[in-house]
Amino acid sequence: MPVTTLTWENNALRLIDQTQLPERLVYIECKDVETVAEAIESLRVRGAPAIGVAAAYGVVIGAQQAIAAGEDTDAGVRAAINRLSHTRPTAVNLFWALTRMENVLDGSAGSLPKAIRECLLREAHAIFAEDRKVCRQIGQNGAQLLKANTTVLTHCNAGGLATVDYGTALAVVYAASEAGKQVAVFADETRPLLQGSRLTAWELQQSGVDVTVICDNMAGAVLREKPIDSVIVGADRIAANGDVANKIGTYGLAILAREHNVPFYVAAPLSTVDLSLSNGGQIPIEERKSEEIIRGLGKQTAPQGVKVYNPAFDITPNGLVTAIVTEKGVATPPYEAAFRAWFDA
Amino acid sequence: MPVTTLTWENNALRLIDQTQLPERLVYIECKDVETVAEAIESLRVRGAPAIGVAAAYGVVIGAQQAIAAGEDTDAGVRAAINRLSHTRPTAVNLFWALTRMENVLDGSAGSLPKAIRECLLREAHAIFAEDRKVCRQIGQNGAQLLKANTTVLTHCNAGGLATVDYGTALAVVYAASEAGKQVAVFADETRPLLQGSRLTAWELQQSGVDVTVICDNMAGAVLREKPIDSVIVGADRIAANGDVANKIGTYGLAILAREHNVPFYVAAPLSTVDLSLSNGGQIPIEERKSEEIIRGLGKQTAPQGVKVYNPAFDITPNGLVTAIVTEKGVATPPYEAAFRAWFDA
Repeated sequence: MPVTTLTWENNALRLIDQTQLPERLVYIECKDVETVAEAIESLRVRGAPAIGVAAAYGVVIGAQQAIAAGEDTDAGVRAAINRLSHTRPTAVNLFWALTRMENVLDGSAGSLPKAIRECLLREAHAIFAEDRKVCRQIGQNGAQLLKANTTVLTHCNAGGLATVDYGTALAVVYAASEAGKQVAVFADETRPLLQGSRLTAWELQQSGVDVTVICDNMAGAVLREKPIDSVIVGADRIAANGDVANKIGTYGLAILAREHNVPFYVAAPLSTVDLSLSNGGQIPIEERKSEEIIRGLGKQTAPQGVKVYNPAFDITPNGLVTAIVTEKGVATPPYEAAFRAWFDA
Repeated sequence: MPVTTLTWENNALRLIDQTQLPERLVYIECKDVETVAEAIESLRVRGAPAIGVAAAYGVVIGAQQAIAAGEDTDAGVRAAINRLSHTRPTAVNLFWALTRMENVLDGSAGSLPKAIRECLLREAHAIFAEDRKVCRQIGQNGAQLLKANTTVLTHCNAGGLATVDYGTALAVVYAASEAGKQVAVFADETRPLLQGSRLTAWELQQSGVDVTVICDNMAGAVLREKPIDSVIVGADRIAANGDVANKIGTYGLAILAREHNVPFYVAAPLSTVDLSLSNGGQIPIEERKSEEIIRGLGKQTAPQGVKVYNPAFDITPNGLVTAIVTEKGVATPPYEAAFRAWFDA
């Protein structure tokens, strides 16, 4: 298990600035809503579950700012929720966490400002604690899918750095390793922002897990040449039918896995499932700036003025997904029935 | 058509240093064999056909160096051939060109040093001229496969910069454009060395062709969302059965093309076909340094000491290749019969 991605300390949100990894392990302290929002937008904190937890604390900070400025707490908190909801569109955990915070705010109407802030902080702490617990349950459930000596291919970072501290896809790796299984990991570097080589490789190395970095376009060759037993990725939003929005490249990787008869697993908390959307075509896909591709690595890597297409996510149809691992268990097709049973439980 | 990749001027090989593109258009002058060899090894000149032409002129330079040093010309030329043959293992055009030069050397045994050098220079010029002609024929043959208004996806750089000046895969685009067709291109950036975003995007932009850069892992989403009519790539070596060695990522792209019912074309000169190898499993695949992946872009993008797998090429089985376009025509499966007929013609 790597370091903790974010913590609440001295009435502020302290988080690892993931844009600095792997060169430097730098923490930033967020004392105002705008700093939290910017951290989410700039991917200083990223990963659907971690974004949800960060946003929850961001709402608490909104209350604190209103109190300190002698302004209306309810209005301040609602402004914070509104600002944070406009940071990134795809990860549903953001909206899930903000809705929970808003419900707490609604429930504390008429309370004194400090009491409202206390209620909000309690809910943020609850979301934080649930994330830690849920990730460990995902790890336990997923580890059963791995044999005693196994090699996993993963994409992007669905590790401790994408959650409070244990991950989703990598929780499966951590739990299997802790159970004494020998797990080796191939990590797609994951262009353009290299969350695989910068973050996944870093946290696996910190945890003593055998990891090999490849470029995204090597996944086909690796699936053919290396003894890959499973592909495991995270998710930013899962539609009711099991279509999965995840980091761009996941869709192609799922096709390559099927071509090589390798199971393709998605590991995510149930809060990633959005039952309001019947299929993945309804999930909003964030398009990001061209600079991430043509000038994201310290030097210009494409000609000036060239057109760029930079979707941050893609949709993997449920038919390519062997199973979805959540804290409630391992779902297999048809997914909607399993999701609805878990939500109703 | 973009600029000319390499020329023979003032008894030296002048070539574009492609590692500097797209930021700077810099030429280097090679006056000794080692400079040519280093230029090939460091990918200052790359692309199977261009490597062949550069190596041919490198042999001439070997003769010149021997003459200038008052050493045995035959021995000097053979040393040059030996050195150049150890630069890169996969592109067969290198060995094809060196064999042609060696045959000329064998045929001029007993001649005066200056006469040997003249014979070698004549052969190198012939290889140069043939490359220009062959690329245009590939373009003509391939352009017939494209409709009047079309979008092509390509990988790496099989353009003018990979040949003397017109390309193989991109020759098809240039010829179609010159014939009045509207061709738009999506270019995979092609990690780790970004020949797609640095070179393909640059030369298409120079030539006024509509080009959009994507990361390699976006190809699946682009094939599903955008109106891609064909995937066209080059080749570094083609086995007798039509298995294709090309830039790493080509194999995965071919699988994605088939999944989306998009034809997958390979464009290459017949000199890329190696009839001595029955299938692609016999093609040597170059593995390159991990630094290209973890520190290739001006900043460190993976943790210190992490394992890296960096194959420069992969093999696309013939079953995924819709057609192979050469200067002789368009081959469809079974490929071996077509190749043998062309070689015998």
